Amino acid sequence: MTKIELKAGERIDQIAASNVQIIQSREVFSFSIDAILLAKFPRLPKKGKIVDMCAGNGAVGLFASSMTNAHITEIELQERLAEMAQRSIKLNGLEEQMTVINDNLNKSLDYINTSTVDLIFCNPPYFKLDEASHINDNHHYTLARHELATNLDEIFETSKRLLKTNGHLAMVHRPDRFFEIIDKMKAHNLIPKRIQFVYPKANQAANILLIDAIKDGKAGGEVFLPPLIVHGEDGAYTEEIRKIYYGEA
Amino acid sequence: MTKIELKAGERIDQIAASNVQIIQSREVFSFSIDAILLAKFPRLPKKGKIVDMCAGNGAVGLFASSMTNAHITEIELQERLAEMAQRSIKLNGLEEQMTVINDNLNKSLDYINTSTVDLIFCNPPYFKLDEASHINDNHHYTLARHELATNLDEIFETSKRLLKTNGHLAMVHRPDRFFEIIDKMKAHNLIPKRIQFVYPKANQAANILLIDAIKDGKAGGEVFLPPLIVHGEDGAYTEEIRKIYYGEA
Repeated sequence: MTKIELKAGERIDQIAASNVQIIQSREVFSFSIDAILLAKFPRLPKKGKIVDMCAGNGAVGLFASSMTNAHITEIELQERLAEMAQRSIKLNGLEEQMTVINDNLNKSLDYINTSTVDLIFCNPPYFKLDEASHINDNHHYTLARHELATNLDEIFETSKRLLKTNGHLAMVHRPDRFFEIIDKMKAHNLIPKRIQFVYPKANQAANILLIDAIKDGKAGGEVFLPPLIVHGEDGAYTEEIRKIYYGEA
Repeated sequence: MTKIELKAGERIDQIAASNVQIIQSREVFSFSIDAILLAKFPRLPKKGKIVDMCAGNGAVGLFASSMTNAHITEIELQERLAEMAQRSIKLNGLEEQMTVINDNLNKSLDYINTSTVDLIFCNPPYFKLDEASHINDNHHYTLARHELATNLDEIFETSKRLLKTNGHLAMVHRPDRFFEIIDKMKAHNLIPKRIQFVYPKANQAANILLIDAIKDGKAGGEVFLPPLIVHGEDGAYTEEIRKIYYGEA
């Protein structure tokens, strides 16, 4: 087994229903259900190029790596997180399949050629800058959660440039920004096609949104996939979520 | 009991979990689950004015009548259906609370003053004119299902004029036209706020869409209500739907 050095506060977790292991740290960042749901959401290209934007510690790309032979590039602005992702890649022996770019996503075109990417994953900061009540004292979390270093327009502009025609952008976000997201996607010729709402319980409003948009797709005929419900009435994960998380049938 | 003459092919049905009775006819029109879900969707004003656009045989307004003291105006273009709605109103002794206008909805302002309506219901034709595969030989059904006599722009323009500031438009439609609907709503200053998707079964894509928009509302913060699932795995109505239909707890 590859020997990887862990820093203070770090641990190694297994990602959901895969054999991939990931270095986590509550002090700087740890992935949430959003990342797992995002990785399982789009149809993955068998080969070609996948980009994981706003990659954090690399959870989405690492999880996806076990389901595709495509090359996966993780783009993460925070050096501490990019470096964790790099060590996780080494830990899993994925250096051939995965690359980490430690830079702002608006610099992606410096590393990846225009119109060459088949699929982009994006689990971006959810909060606008004016939503100050959510600002966290921890700088790592603040950058991951707030549109300080990037925003939707920049994400979609970069995605449009990176993607091939008919390439897909798979994004996870909050339902209360859905209309803004689709307006801005369409303004960048990214046409939302498959949408799924995730509900904490069957009788609660949606709190997670999954969108699959196609570059230069034809407008209209959008599909709203079956609802994903996370917890049963007893508070335990539903069968569907257990299947995604642990691979249970 | 009021004596009402039924025409050939007509029958009297009770509308869901209410005591209201409605004259139906398979030959010209009979209400579907969409109408029942729409009537139960918005918060009803206790008094004031409600308009039921594209009213058909009046099901939405008749059902709502038992839950509010507001005056309800049914607007229906087809004489045969408007006349059925009128007889249903008489059958239920609702002549004080309800009025039928037999005209195109774009003539609404000839009957109702601008900016005076608290809530508009709309269960419009779902299909664009180019969706020719759905054209039905029966003229009554064709007008009810296809945008022959009206369309979204006309519905939203009329709604904007009729509604008070902060008045609500509650619409039922198809999910595959969701983005077009919200774009056109916003172009008429109708801001979609509460959205609910209805799924035929828990593992199937949504096939009915409910939208509650507010005239001159503030954009952003849209809420996606808990999913409504119509049938269980056994094909029977779910508890939730039975409650809406039959009032069962």
